[in-house]
Amino acid sequence: MSDPIFERIAIIGAGLIGSSIARAATAYGAAGSVSLYDASDDVRARAAGLDIGEVAGTLADAVKDADCVILCVPVGALAPVAQAAVPHMKEGAILSDVGSVKKQAAEALASADDGRVFIIPGHPVAGTEQSGPEAGFPTLFRNAWYILTPQSGKGEAYDAAADRLKAFWVVLGSKVETMDPARHDRVLAITSHLPHLIAFNIVSTAFDMETVEEGEVVKFSAGGFRDFTRIAASDPVMWRDVFLNNKEAVLECLGRFSEDLAALQRAIRWGDGDFLMHEFSRARTIRKAVIDAGQDSGAVNFGRNQNGAKPDA
Amino acid sequence: MSDPIFERIAIIGAGLIGSSIARAATAYGAAGSVSLYDASDDVRARAAGLDIGEVAGTLADAVKDADCVILCVPVGALAPVAQAAVPHMKEGAILSDVGSVKKQAAEALASADDGRVFIIPGHPVAGTEQSGPEAGFPTLFRNAWYILTPQSGKGEAYDAAADRLKAFWVVLGSKVETMDPARHDRVLAITSHLPHLIAFNIVSTAFDMETVEEGEVVKFSAGGFRDFTRIAASDPVMWRDVFLNNKEAVLECLGRFSEDLAALQRAIRWGDGDFLMHEFSRARTIRKAVIDAGQDSGAVNFGRNQNGAKPDA
Repeated sequence: MSDPIFERIAIIGAGLIGSSIARAATAYGAAGSVSLYDASDDVRARAAGLDIGEVAGTLADAVKDADCVILCVPVGALAPVAQAAVPHMKEGAILSDVGSVKKQAAEALASADDGRVFIIPGHPVAGTEQSGPEAGFPTLFRNAWYILTPQSGKGEAYDAAADRLKAFWVVLGSKVETMDPARHDRVLAITSHLPHLIAFNIVSTAFDMETVEEGEVVKFSAGGFRDFTRIAASDPVMWRDVFLNNKEAVLECLGRFSEDLAALQRAIRWGDGDFLMHEFSRARTIRKAVIDAGQDSGAVNFGRNQNGAKPDA
Repeated sequence: MSDPIFERIAIIGAGLIGSSIARAATAYGAAGSVSLYDASDDVRARAAGLDIGEVAGTLADAVKDADCVILCVPVGALAPVAQAAVPHMKEGAILSDVGSVKKQAAEALASADDGRVFIIPGHPVAGTEQSGPEAGFPTLFRNAWYILTPQSGKGEAYDAAADRLKAFWVVLGSKVETMDPARHDRVLAITSHLPHLIAFNIVSTAFDMETVEEGEVVKFSAGGFRDFTRIAASDPVMWRDVFLNNKEAVLECLGRFSEDLAALQRAIRWGDGDFLMHEFSRARTIRKAVIDAGQDSGAVNFGRNQNGAKPDA
């Protein structure tokens, strides 16, 4: 193991992602020490029992000696937490986050900028449908993308800080990509936000049908529906904030999705088998591209635990 | 191993399901011998190389000595295949199918009824996104539901034949349920048909966005989208026939789904976080029910291979 990238990191928010970073930073030697803080007394107490880092009693205590502070809270909470953290941070330390929406995240972090710290937003594209400090594991980020959305034209010291943050995620096993925040939000809207919204929605529709069909929906869920219930079991607060903060890109994708669905609906109603065949066959093409990309890069973590099995397998 | 349920079965259509039944019937001793036929010369040749049964050169040869003939072809092909098979079947043999839509399947099989055979439609609720004789495996039906939709009031001999068919699937490892065809079609519309349609649709929408976003959709598909591409990789012909033949129930579910999605869309546009939280939290409730049901019954096979891992894991 080589020297740690950071002497000490602070993780604010000890949920699935935060506790996984804490575990990974220690396991792969990316940080000399890890401090953790969570606004919830209950989560702090649970985290303290897990041996994943030093659980601090206050936010100020957690961040004061850290070279890098990573906020692992829902996007809607980023601004107040950043504003509370920055005054206690060391000069020259890095402030980052893990939010799934980068334009809003960048603005939220920037609202706390006092010119003493380097503000570098980022997003590890990894997760499971589990929540809480117990759900984390150190291999969560291995072979997953980590998207850095740094500010430009901030000077050499800033760029050097961004390089250190990149190096940290590389040690955690991630493949790092740099991207413009707006582009990140558009790409994630279609690859992640829309799929989650659709999963939430179909589960909700089925929930009502469950009453109509007297329990048979759950009983026969193995026919395809079950996969959606897994995706839809993800943290509601996190996802509420994603949709509220990536409104434009999500509504754009949703518009396209609804148009396309209306076309399928019309084809079913009018018995247009050729149209259905054409659309369904296209889906295989993109599946092949996804598999090829996955085989080249090994880029899959979503929804799997350390053994590569789905949690309910 | 006890005595086989059937001396000889015939499998017509040697794809994922047909070849899995052939393998399972032999592996678990449910049939004394297995004959196979597929309308495609190519599939017949491939099946012949797999040692999964005696591959016959004609449909008539495949069915002539069988006590039970199971048609494993798309729903749209059931009527002509049944009509071609029945005249060559033994008196008192069973004619069944594996179609995902039971009202139309029952009518298709009934169109071949000459009063000499027992027509008993059925549906194993199991599968993967793979197709072809190579994709089958003997454990596909273990712990999965098998839904029998027998005709009623057909007399004692018919009921005895239905009991034998049930026993066959029990030996294959399935949990057998008897259901009215119309109810089967409504329940499967929400648990299976709608989820597949939605998966096909989101992949189609993303396919177009892929051009807009220059390859980034596939690249970052691990954020949730990837799960949909797997479901959407299922056989296009099979699914075209499902939607064309379960039109009413699918359109009913689709109407509900679109209404619910419009409500989510409106909440996103107007920033109604409380509504989103309420809907997303409901999804966790049904997920818990699905997991509980799965743990009680072990009822999951969809999308997993013999080792319980997803094929792309």
